[in-house]
Amino acid sequence: MAKNGSAHDGSDGDSAAARRAPAGAAVLREDKTAAIRAAVFEELAAVGFARMSIEGIARRAGVGKTAVYRRWRSKLHLVLDVVSAVAAAGLPSPDTGSLRGDVRMLLEVAARALRHPMASQIIPDLLAEAARSPELAGALKTALHDSQQGVAAAMVARAVERGEIPAGVDAGLALDLLTGPLYWRLVVVRDDLPGGYLDELAAAVAGALGGR
Amino acid sequence: MAKNGSAHDGSDGDSAAARRAPAGAAVLREDKTAAIRAAVFEELAAVGFARMSIEGIARRAGVGKTAVYRRWRSKLHLVLDVVSAVAAAGLPSPDTGSLRGDVRMLLEVAARALRHPMASQIIPDLLAEAARSPELAGALKTALHDSQQGVAAAMVARAVERGEIPAGVDAGLALDLLTGPLYWRLVVVRDDLPGGYLDELAAAVAGALGGR
Repeated sequence: MAKNGSAHDGSDGDSAAARRAPAGAAVLREDKTAAIRAAVFEELAAVGFARMSIEGIARRAGVGKTAVYRRWRSKLHLVLDVVSAVAAAGLPSPDTGSLRGDVRMLLEVAARALRHPMASQIIPDLLAEAARSPELAGALKTALHDSQQGVAAAMVARAVERGEIPAGVDAGLALDLLTGPLYWRLVVVRDDLPGGYLDELAAAVAGALGGR
Repeated sequence: MAKNGSAHDGSDGDSAAARRAPAGAAVLREDKTAAIRAAVFEELAAVGFARMSIEGIARRAGVGKTAVYRRWRSKLHLVLDVVSAVAAAGLPSPDTGSLRGDVRMLLEVAARALRHPMASQIIPDLLAEAARSPELAGALKTALHDSQQGVAAAMVARAVERGEIPAGVDAGLALDLLTGPLYWRLVVVRDDLPGGYLDELAAAVAGALGGR
């Protein structure tokens, strides 16, 4: 394949707008960015991280390769950015008025995300790759953990403030209890959620943190 | 490569013993079986499930390919048997006299297994493969889940008998709480266990199940 396979490569498709932009500022069409992001998920699910190429992503998104490289400098950076965005958007910070209510809502959101066919294909794939790539492992840790740690910490702080649980509960432990059991059941064991399971788990996790 | 690369292929290495065996009974040298089992783990960690071959396993174990095929009919069956054996042996059924003590001991064993470099490479690899192979997914579920479900059920039953927790706690939920948080932290996020973490987690899981 030639390095510049398309006449549009190197342009972001709207050169008039690009010429009007202040020097040094990139004008990137949002619809192209969105198409590339969507294509990353489809490519990851279809061929996996190892076999995925910028070329394949660009083809699926209907853009030139340069449109991808303008936004992200490598396949690794592209995937991490996309996964981080989903991880950060995935866990809202609920405030239902009770620890158990907050836990129940976070479990619902996490269960929906983990049951998505793409998540159940993409996450194991990236983790297998991370076992052999310290750079990917470190970045996944940031994407999966650090963005969600704040949500868990806020939930714990509100419960302490309401007098539901004693101060001193570790937010890291709270996050492990919120995500681990569902991840184990849905992604590792690939089992169903029986009826009432999320209610039982919410009561258990609230109990684990000291609330009853 | 020729199908029979070694003069020893087809023999299990002790033909005199084989001739003395009753008709129909296979005489399989235990040391060869052990060497093959060990080689499976080394090959899985080195090249992963997808790229692993019976030929590579046999070479690493110092046996002929036929010695492998005598014992297992495919790569999938071999890997599942080896993983099942480890999963079943991994979780003992402790009886420390208290729910919290039992939980603490199971967490200790699980943490040791999951921190093993081989586990952290092999499990994500098999799970990535399972996302595209229903046969492997089903067999992994049996290996990882069903063998450990009994241990969790026995732990819960003893705690109910001792009056520590009310009857009716679901053993499946108990198993998710025992394995999920550690799996999430050690294998997915690849984080450390801070000092005192296992004690905190043991108290939390006992609390989750209704014991304080």
